[in-house]
Amino acid sequence: MTTALIETIGLVAGTLTTASFLPQVLKAFRTRQTRDISLLMYSILCTGVSIWLVYGFLINSLAVILANAVTLILVLGVLFLKLRHG
Amino acid sequence: MTTALIETIGLVAGTLTTASFLPQVLKAFRTRQTRDISLLMYSILCTGVSIWLVYGFLINSLAVILANAVTLILVLGVLFLKLRHG
Repeated sequence: MTTALIETIGLVAGTLTTASFLPQVLKAFRTRQTRDISLLMYSILCTGVSIWLVYGFLINSLAVILANAVTLILVLGVLFLKLRHG
Repeated sequence: MTTALIETIGLVAGTLTTASFLPQVLKAFRTRQTRDISLLMYSILCTGVSIWLVYGFLINSLAVILANAVTLILVLGVLFLKLRHG
């Protein structure tokens, strides 16, 4: 398998894991119901994704920086709605 | 900054983002309430993490394989509970 194909598979994976948080932000925003969402999960996730972002800058990887910057925005969105609606 | 320190930062980030799903699985298992959790999020996430796992095998990265194998188990747990409790 060529390197280009393997890296494309990685990009598809990264796009999906990042994009997956969008439906959750939209659902929480629309319904204003976040009781079943774990506050601890999104707190740990925000910390982890922030450290991934630092790691991306340290290794100068645009893919890691971009994926985690977008993920951080979406995860912060869920965390904000969870803190607001309980 | 040394390469070892940078890779340690990456490992901390990976451990946190993987571990973050554990409180959500436990909460959903304990409360049996998953209404506010987005089914679409966990469907896309399962697909994305599965492709990350394939990518890990293709680039022979034990870190990518391990992180995504554990994440997949936890995310499948949330998805199973969501499908069961609605």
